[in-house]
Amino acid sequence: MMTSQNRLPQLRKDAITGRWVVFSPARAKRPSDFKSKAPATASDHRGRCPFCSGNEHMCAPQIFRVPPDPSSDWKIRVIENLYPALDRNLKDADFDGGGGGGGGDADVLRGFGFHDVVIETPDHSVHLSDLSPREVGDVILAYKKRVEQLLTFDSIKYVQVFKNHGASAGASLSHSHSQIIALPIVPSNVSARIECLREHFNQTGKCCLCEVPSNELLIDESAHFVSFVPFVASSPFEIWIVPRDHSPHFHELDDNKAADLGGLLKLMLRKISIQLNDPPFNFMIQTSPVHTSVSELGSTHWYLQIVPQLTIVAGFEVATGCHINPVFPEEAAKVLREVHVQ
Amino acid sequence: MMTSQNRLPQLRKDAITGRWVVFSPARAKRPSDFKSKAPATASDHRGRCPFCSGNEHMCAPQIFRVPPDPSSDWKIRVIENLYPALDRNLKDADFDGGGGGGGGDADVLRGFGFHDVVIETPDHSVHLSDLSPREVGDVILAYKKRVEQLLTFDSIKYVQVFKNHGASAGASLSHSHSQIIALPIVPSNVSARIECLREHFNQTGKCCLCEVPSNELLIDESAHFVSFVPFVASSPFEIWIVPRDHSPHFHELDDNKAADLGGLLKLMLRKISIQLNDPPFNFMIQTSPVHTSVSELGSTHWYLQIVPQLTIVAGFEVATGCHINPVFPEEAAKVLREVHVQ
Ligand SMILES: Nc1ncnc2c1ncn2[C@@H]1O[C@H](COP(=O)(O)OP(=O)(O)O[C@H]2O[C@H](CO)[C@@H](O)[C@H](O)[C@H]2O)[C@@H](O)[C@H]1O
Ligand SMILES: Nc1ncnc2c1ncn2[C@@H]1O[C@H](COP(=O)(O)OP(=O)(O)O[C@H]2O[C@H](CO)[C@@H](O)[C@H](O)[C@H]2O)[C@@H](O)[C@H]1O
Repeated sequence: MMTSQNRLPQLRKDAITGRWVVFSPARAKRPSDFKSKAPATASDHRGRCPFCSGNEHMCAPQIFRVPPDPSSDWKIRVIENLYPALDRNLKDADFDGGGGGGGGDADVLRGFGFHDVVIETPDHSVHLSDLSPREVGDVILAYKKRVEQLLTFDSIKYVQVFKNHGASAGASLSHSHSQIIALPIVPSNVSARIECLREHFNQTGKCCLCEVPSNELLIDESAHFVSFVPFVASSPFEIWIVPRDHSPHFHELDDNKAADLGGLLKLMLRKISIQLNDPPFNFMIQTSPVHTSVSELGSTHWYLQIVPQLTIVAGFEVATGCHINPVFPEEAAKVLREVHVQ
Repeated sequence: MMTSQNRLPQLRKDAITGRWVVFSPARAKRPSDFKSKAPATASDHRGRCPFCSGNEHMCAPQIFRVPPDPSSDWKIRVIENLYPALDRNLKDADFDGGGGGGGGDADVLRGFGFHDVVIETPDHSVHLSDLSPREVGDVILAYKKRVEQLLTFDSIKYVQVFKNHGASAGASLSHSHSQIIALPIVPSNVSARIECLREHFNQTGKCCLCEVPSNELLIDESAHFVSFVPFVASSPFEIWIVPRDHSPHFHELDDNKAADLGGLLKLMLRKISIQLNDPPFNFMIQTSPVHTSVSELGSTHWYLQIVPQLTIVAGFEVATGCHINPVFPEEAAKVLREVHVQ
């Protein structure tokens, strides 16, 4: 394989998102005359951090805790977000008045929905990747339990689980946590993905995500999951973890598979932390809408997407939806395969 | 109108992009325990900045300059990008080998295309908004001239003009400049926009962007353009400048309209600079693909989109494509209408 810096640029269109990515190793070399920002470090908030053990009174109401028995210390808490994007107390996601011109009519809904926080550990200094595989699995099971609760609300059409780590990946609090937003609509990225997957299925008779990635892209595997760099990664060192068995919805995962996923997720987070020096990152659970038609169940397949935030989305990406990635996926996968984790 | 902080959240679906935005004033109040980053200031690069007058030898080749007469000083230079995302010397945008698994098959093209830089002024300390309306108009005419040259290449399917200002909006060099990328594909955001506009036209018989925005959203107007906050702004204080007359392609603009646009663009940039304290921003010219079918010419209409970068795109937005905007467009427009510019 040619070394990355000498490779010619290439455009790849993702079969799953429908988006093009420009792979362009030469871009990695450009200079900058902005003084580099000091990496945003968390100030020491012990005692003032609402997510720390002992500060539960500073938080919005708890939904559940793990373990449930209140006589023991908690290990995970699922709570309401104190500054929710959507309002769980609104009656419903009804139509909310007329459109507005200025770019045409628009559908308008009352902002009904749920916005929760999952506190992954009582300890301020512990990261998700410091937990044991089983403990990471328990966090995943907490997601699952909350997702299942949210699905019981008639107006909820899609549930997004995600994690922000590091200030430039959007985290406003440094204590390890993730978030769950339940929406009264199906977001456009999700409908586009479902549509692309269905088209792939119609053309090939196969689920796109059941296909085994090439060895060049593979990073690792466990009993029930595969981790790899997607062929059309939109960011350098992006990683997908995909269940081997066909499964449209994340919440179908059982305890056994959750523990297995916990191990592989921990390993991937350790790898990017070692290789990229604790980079800011997001991870997202890409699942299917609550109401997925029987005909679509064969073509959609959930996965967990990890995106280290190493490049800045600027004018070109905002306008086109097309990302410029200076690292070819095959190179990123090779590097990640070779990172040694004790 | 209720003051923003007390308004209930609302979801609006944009008729032009097809994307939902969550308007959520309560989000503006959340705390952060990350030490705030010092705003990235440009170091003093006079003498070392490749875009400064006198340093032309540090740049990639010039394409043209304004004024063309080499015996006078230049005011604008259009040059090749030294670290181009795409390669103008590749023969063509042909198919470049097979797909790759790991997320399914993908279209793969050789990375043919053009990536140019427009140096807006020879002076390191001058911003675009410091230029006179006519000079801003000349920058716009330089975009137009270069776009027209790029359209003559058979494989070019879309040309994106954009500007990054400020480090956190992605700018790597502080000397005032914009960029032009000519692509051998139509990006997914553009095809989605064209499709949404066509649907609107089919339903209403009208071009969505010819409709006059409501007074609540209007910021200002000139002889040939209107500026307003879109009803479904994805970011706080986002501004669109739209030609009054129906016009699918940016490069149809004449000298007279370019000077008029120069004045309105300058005014909008001054307003956000005063109101938001010189924020990082991107602007993008949203035009139509090179080959737009006759049936689509009636429904597509170009515009210039200005996006101050005040919020961070994090896990939720990356996953869903759905933005959370803490400022209602009607509030942002009111504020921007009232900003006093000397
Ligand atoms: N005492 C308390 N009790 C309960 N909850 C509390 C609390 N104090 C704070 N919170 C909540 O805790 C959450 C922490 O979340 P993150 O740090 O992952 O990112 P945040 O949601 O702030 O924004 C990032 O993620 C969102 C979604 O992707 C982006 O819109 C945004 O721009 C980006 O910065 C916040 O949502 C906050 O509202
Ligand atoms: N001597 C020279 N001669 C000619 N050209 C020179 C040069 N020295 C530098 N350049 C070019 O000048 C350009 C300056 O552009 P910007 O500062 O607007 O953002 P940049 O393209 O770096 O990346 C931002 O915008 C892109 C596109 O949106 C994002 O992919 C990216 O993450 C974000 O940081 C760079 O593209 C650079 O390659």
